[in-house]
Amino acid sequence: MSLLADLLSTLIERRAAVGQGADDRPIEDLCRDLLGSRGEVSGYALVAAILDRYDAMDDAGKLAFFRFLNDEMDIDHGAVAAALAAYGDAPSQATYRAFMAAAEPARQELARRLNQVPGATARLVAMRADLLRLIGQDAALAKLDLDFRHLLSSWFNRGFLVLRPITWSSPAKILEDIISYEAVHAIDSWDDLRRRVQPADRRCFAFFHPAMPDEPLIFVEVALTKGVPGSIQAVLAGDRAALDPAQADTATFYSISNCQAGLAGISFGNSLIKQVAEDLSRALPQLETFVTLSPIPGLAAWMQANLVKAQSAAEQRQIAAHYLLNAKRPNGTPLDPVARFHLQNGASVMDIHAGADTSARGQSLSGGAMVNYRYDLGRVADNHEAFVHEAQVIAAPEIVKLAAQPLPDTA
Amino acid sequence: MSLLADLLSTLIERRAAVGQGADDRPIEDLCRDLLGSRGEVSGYALVAAILDRYDAMDDAGKLAFFRFLNDEMDIDHGAVAAALAAYGDAPSQATYRAFMAAAEPARQELARRLNQVPGATARLVAMRADLLRLIGQDAALAKLDLDFRHLLSSWFNRGFLVLRPITWSSPAKILEDIISYEAVHAIDSWDDLRRRVQPADRRCFAFFHPAMPDEPLIFVEVALTKGVPGSIQAVLAGDRAALDPAQADTATFYSISNCQAGLAGISFGNSLIKQVAEDLSRALPQLETFVTLSPIPGLAAWMQANLVKAQSAAEQRQIAAHYLLNAKRPNGTPLDPVARFHLQNGASVMDIHAGADTSARGQSLSGGAMVNYRYDLGRVADNHEAFVHEAQVIAAPEIVKLAAQPLPDTA
Amino acid sequence: MSLLADLLSTLIERRAAVGQGADDRPIEDLCRDLLGSRGEVSGYALVAAILDRYDAMDDAGKLAFFRFLNDEMDIDHGAVAAALAAYGDAPSQATYRAFMAAAEPARQELARRLNQVPGATARLVAMRADLLRLIGQDAALAKLDLDFRHLLSSWFNRGFLVLRPITWSSPAKILEDIISYEAVHAIDSWDDLRRRVQPADRRCFAFFHPAMPDEPLIFVEVALTKGVPGSIQAVLAGDRAALDPAQADTATFYSISNCQAGLAGISFGNSLIKQVAEDLSRALPQLETFVTLSPIPGLAAWMQANLVKAQSAAEQRQIAAHYLLNAKRPNGTPLDPVARFHLQNGASVMDIHAGADTSARGQSLSGGAMVNYRYDLGRVADNHEAFVHEAQVIAAPEIVKLAAQPLPDTA
Amino acid sequence: MSLLADLLSTLIERRAAVGQGADDRPIEDLCRDLLGSRGEVSGYALVAAILDRYDAMDDAGKLAFFRFLNDEMDIDHGAVAAALAAYGDAPSQATYRAFMAAAEPARQELARRLNQVPGATARLVAMRADLLRLIGQDAALAKLDLDFRHLLSSWFNRGFLVLRPITWSSPAKILEDIISYEAVHAIDSWDDLRRRVQPADRRCFAFFHPAMPDEPLIFVEVALTKGVPGSIQAVLAGDRAALDPAQADTATFYSISNCQAGLAGISFGNSLIKQVAEDLSRALPQLETFVTLSPIPGLAAWMQANLVKAQSAAEQRQIAAHYLLNAKRPNGTPLDPVARFHLQNGASVMDIHAGADTSARGQSLSGGAMVNYRYDLGRVADNHEAFVHEAQVIAAPEIVKLAAQPLPDTA
Repeated sequence: MSLLADLLSTLIERRAAVGQGADDRPIEDLCRDLLGSRGEVSGYALVAAILDRYDAMDDAGKLAFFRFLNDEMDIDHGAVAAALAAYGDAPSQATYRAFMAAAEPARQELARRLNQVPGATARLVAMRADLLRLIGQDAALAKLDLDFRHLLSSWFNRGFLVLRPITWSSPAKILEDIISYEAVHAIDSWDDLRRRVQPADRRCFAFFHPAMPDEPLIFVEVALTKGVPGSIQAVLAGDRAALDPAQADTATFYSISNCQAGLAGISFGNSLIKQVAEDLSRALPQLETFVTLSPIPGLAAWMQANLVKAQSAAEQRQIAAHYLLNAKRPNGTPLDPVARFHLQNGASVMDIHAGADTSARGQSLSGGAMVNYRYDLGRVADNHEAFVHEAQVIAAPEIVKLAAQPLPDTA
Repeated sequence: MSLLADLLSTLIERRAAVGQGADDRPIEDLCRDLLGSRGEVSGYALVAAILDRYDAMDDAGKLAFFRFLNDEMDIDHGAVAAALAAYGDAPSQATYRAFMAAAEPARQELARRLNQVPGATARLVAMRADLLRLIGQDAALAKLDLDFRHLLSSWFNRGFLVLRPITWSSPAKILEDIISYEAVHAIDSWDDLRRRVQPADRRCFAFFHPAMPDEPLIFVEVALTKGVPGSIQAVLAGDRAALDPAQADTATFYSISNCQAGLAGISFGNSLIKQVAEDLSRALPQLETFVTLSPIPGLAAWMQANLVKAQSAAEQRQIAAHYLLNAKRPNGTPLDPVARFHLQNGASVMDIHAGADTSARGQSLSGGAMVNYRYDLGRVADNHEAFVHEAQVIAAPEIVKLAAQPLPDTA
Repeated sequence: MSLLADLLSTLIERRAAVGQGADDRPIEDLCRDLLGSRGEVSGYALVAAILDRYDAMDDAGKLAFFRFLNDEMDIDHGAVAAALAAYGDAPSQATYRAFMAAAEPARQELARRLNQVPGATARLVAMRADLLRLIGQDAALAKLDLDFRHLLSSWFNRGFLVLRPITWSSPAKILEDIISYEAVHAIDSWDDLRRRVQPADRRCFAFFHPAMPDEPLIFVEVALTKGVPGSIQAVLAGDRAALDPAQADTATFYSISNCQAGLAGISFGNSLIKQVAEDLSRALPQLETFVTLSPIPGLAAWMQANLVKAQSAAEQRQIAAHYLLNAKRPNGTPLDPVARFHLQNGASVMDIHAGADTSARGQSLSGGAMVNYRYDLGRVADNHEAFVHEAQVIAAPEIVKLAAQPLPDTA
Repeated sequence: MSLLADLLSTLIERRAAVGQGADDRPIEDLCRDLLGSRGEVSGYALVAAILDRYDAMDDAGKLAFFRFLNDEMDIDHGAVAAALAAYGDAPSQATYRAFMAAAEPARQELARRLNQVPGATARLVAMRADLLRLIGQDAALAKLDLDFRHLLSSWFNRGFLVLRPITWSSPAKILEDIISYEAVHAIDSWDDLRRRVQPADRRCFAFFHPAMPDEPLIFVEVALTKGVPGSIQAVLAGDRAALDPAQADTATFYSISNCQAGLAGISFGNSLIKQVAEDLSRALPQLETFVTLSPIPGLAAWMQANLVKAQSAAEQRQIAAHYLLNAKRPNGTPLDPVARFHLQNGASVMDIHAGADTSARGQSLSGGAMVNYRYDLGRVADNHEAFVHEAQVIAAPEIVKLAAQPLPDTA
């Protein structure tokens, strides 16, 4: 590893050294130049000029730039059709190459050339975050987003990501990111953060990309517990005594948050949970259960829409079971987005708890109910298949039974 | 940087942990599975099975596997045409997405999924090296190679590469690679290597990729000199006294070698030379000249073919000038491959030396003549443009004059 | 450096592995054993037993243990006299060795043997912190403290210390130490800390010892400024704009704090300031002035004792000048401890500011007055000599003049 | 660990920056200055001047400098006697401090002050290597060596040393040291080295000191084997197949070599073997036996001196057993120095092999016989005690029996 450490040490140092070009032509001309022959050899200055120009733009400027990419740097319909025909007539390396070139819009090559400067990857991710923010103003840009997504999926391929523990010895800069990106159970303060990363029975892991080494991409918080916890209050209690990790039989994933708006839709969560589960079970072989403690964000809204009310914890639990197993979107998948995420990953519904999240947010989203999704590494593939092909939601027998009971009288 | 170092430290550790699948279905079935829904969640085991299966194959097996990728995982002509038409009729995100999906052969997604296991990148590079080795047996595979090249160009984008000095304190494993990959002036022994990396006036730099941290991709050897050296013997002399780098006015690139057969055609050399030149000029601001000392590998063959003979060093030099500036391929670019590389990069022909390489190899390739190509960072863009658009070879006036003289009488 | 990094990486890992001995003899017997022949080979278990036993003691137990070290492990007067005489009679290696052995109390060798376990250094430093805390209860232990001090001075020799910048990317664990050890101008919060380490014109540096890599020993906070700042409010202002470091002409050391109570009296401050000054002047050659902004902690008490009152800022300044230059201890050195520290280091009194520290603490210690001590690296040796040999306080002419004026009427 | 790595990274960088003093007074004056008050604050320049001056000296100059340290910087007999008496009369911190100061020769403080510059530790170690080389020319210098030894023992305390594996990925600079310092079974070439560090069943470990991070202090080579190897030829065979480490039941230490002449007599070997044994048994819990394969360097000379001859392998083995167990020095310890080292460490004689070292060196030292010393971590303390207090050599019953048989007829 020190080898890797060593060889990568220039990445950050070099950032400072990216050249500046004081080229004042329109950014569109600079982009055309970068795609032209000059771009092959004088890339650095051009790239710096383009990225700096972009950063200085207001939203109107950025929208105009995105439209330029979307429209001018699109595929040429006629050229693709011709290349396709030529390839069909005489399949050869030459005709295939011509087809490949025609079928890929120029903006993809532009992005690759922009990426030749160290630090550019993060700036392109930020550019896509801008695009997603502004896309509502021009639905046609959805096309451009597909190209961003295609490229970023390739660059942020699982094989290039690095899983790292986040601890109290991690750089403050990264811990600060964790505080600000935590999306599920807000971290109030550095002391609150410390309670999540420092005790022996708490873990946090994040994926990083070598080209953005100080930016976590996604992170998950884990509690090592004896038994499956039934409330987030128990997990986050400030005064609890830490458990000796060797005594734990369960790893509870109680929060998973994305950090990069510009990487929306490029899914790391699935890999992250499984990788962490594998690593933990290697380090602590006595762990038997890998489970989440998850919110049910759509429950309260669904209850309201369907005029369902819970008079007791037992009823709340029953309604939640019904909602998770029976409430479906038109395509047959569950209404609840968190349920879709974990079930799609191959998890199963293990248990449901009323009064499990007493925070204002928990109350308003789900009346305080939470759910454990179980990741049984030996079963995720089958569960996933059943879910994908038959929209089948795998759940513990008790939950299945609960969901099958008649709902309490509606209000 | 320690941050980066730290966060990446798992990469290598993790390699050992890649799971094994004892799945004995044909590799083609495993690949189809990996592309299917199961592949999304149970990727690790499948990928390991596929890569291990591949590694165990003999050349016949590999050829068969390549044909499978080439033929079965190709684009579907009709589907592309239909998607293109649909997109043309109603351009929308949905039709564009469908076109993108259709226009990319499934083998590209397969490669991306194979790459999700740490260590897979190097194995895919090795797979392409196999392909290039075997491609002569089936020219149709050239198509498949275009896809490899497309993906690897994106993954080995300049922005992801890391430039590192290679020194006598570098890991022996990497130094051993340098010894074995040196393609221009062979390194005989560890002592010979040491003479190229340890003296204060010698430098060596290599590009690395974070996913292959112990494999150099390409490296360049540099001599810091007072004046431009006129022979490789002077540069490599075993008994020379090292120059104080602060006294040097010239950085001479005397060898540049690729290390990865599987990355052939994905050009790093251009970036490497310029990056090293920039770094050196920051560290040693008194350096004035950046120059190569390069072989002229096609000279002797050309002289033989054209019945040209040199009776003296002066004649040899004149013939070399003529050859470099006037001997062209049908498309107007220089016959000499090394000349094409440097001129395409924006270098110019600065000087030519007879008797500059007295080794057997140097004698047989060029009768001992060598050439200095100059990298003037302020001029490379213009030179490159002139070369690309007008096939113009920029050379020092003296060399232009030399090349214009009538050749000595042919034999 | 990666070499060093690499080779040291085991230090921390190993900590976990220190063996446990369940030896229940008295700690005194364990210590005698450790000094005996068995200690040479079975050191680990014995050391672990002794250190664990010590850690579990209450203060009474620790006092008893210190008395054991002080009394039983002292030099043997008669043995020293005999060895000295033998050496005097016949100076040889053998007689000198015998004298050395006799003249060193056994507790020093005991400490060296205790230090053979990784992590022991920090525990011995903590042991001395206990000793200093308890020494008031038994003045005879002052002797034992001299041995601790002797050993720790040798182990924490300047050549073994490592200077490191503390930044917002430093581990949170270390930043937390900085917050809690800051002794001069309290750090209220992580945001307050960030204001001292993150802006481009703020620096923080600490000394570390390789055997205690996550424990800062002493740190200094520096502001890069244009001109010498005249108040701590200006330095710590929350809303100020950061200065481009290239524009700074002055480095102001505005806080220096020790972190290890167990290293009291082992002076690093002198080296730290000079090392940081040297490093900064290499990195930012345009820096002209290296100066502190220091409290005058004894001023208010002295004014009260001498019935001196200031009616204005000007009078406060004049009184402070008088106090710093003229108020002396019986041995002729300045009354003010901070003044002694910097003047002993070779600094001079450069300027004095009234109203420079409006905090409650600043008001109560010095009525808000602060002083700039100047470190002129070319003059520190001479200043130091003058101070040490002639108790001469070097000061700027204006301050000398101010100090020479008659004091305002006493109250 | 990355923390440590990070914080130490300045050590090497800083080396370049040590200041130069162009002070041309005699080195003795510089040393007196360094010990005086000026030395406290202007240490860097003085230290650099002294160390540079020393390095430039020839042996005569060095001898003179050593005599200066030995004679002028000795203890003052009268002063020690007076301080001792004062302390005896009135034991107090003040009288104890005065005694400590008097009883320590000034050269020890001088060495500590010299060590304040980074890089100085290695230079002081080199200075002692000079002293040991020259001490034959002036036996009086043995006194000075005791002070060096005292200081270096404290600085190179086990707790400060770092154990690191040496692998084929270690820096070439360090591997080169391993090649040149290997004292037992010479390493012929880089390929030979590779055979000792790269195969899965070969390990190498070295101790390092943080202040000399690129200089191994001592290293040991280990073979993981099935059963205890009976010849060095088997261990070093070029064509053997590597054993899967998980199959090994034995770790054989077949070579241990010191690297620093200047650290002679400061024993690390004992700690190194035990530390490596502990680490290996943690990593490979199935290892049952830790054993050396050691030369018997004094055997042939002893046989010659005692006119003993072996007519067969069996006789050679019997004679070796006799020699190891019965041949003693006047003080009762074994004649053989390697035997003394391991037995003193608490090892036992496990087995003896004739024809075990067929190299010329092995033949000439011991007629090819070698011995296995066993390190049974549960027994080393008892063995050591028996050896130290009763000069008892613990050996396997078969060896005891062998040693008790009458020697073959002498020649």
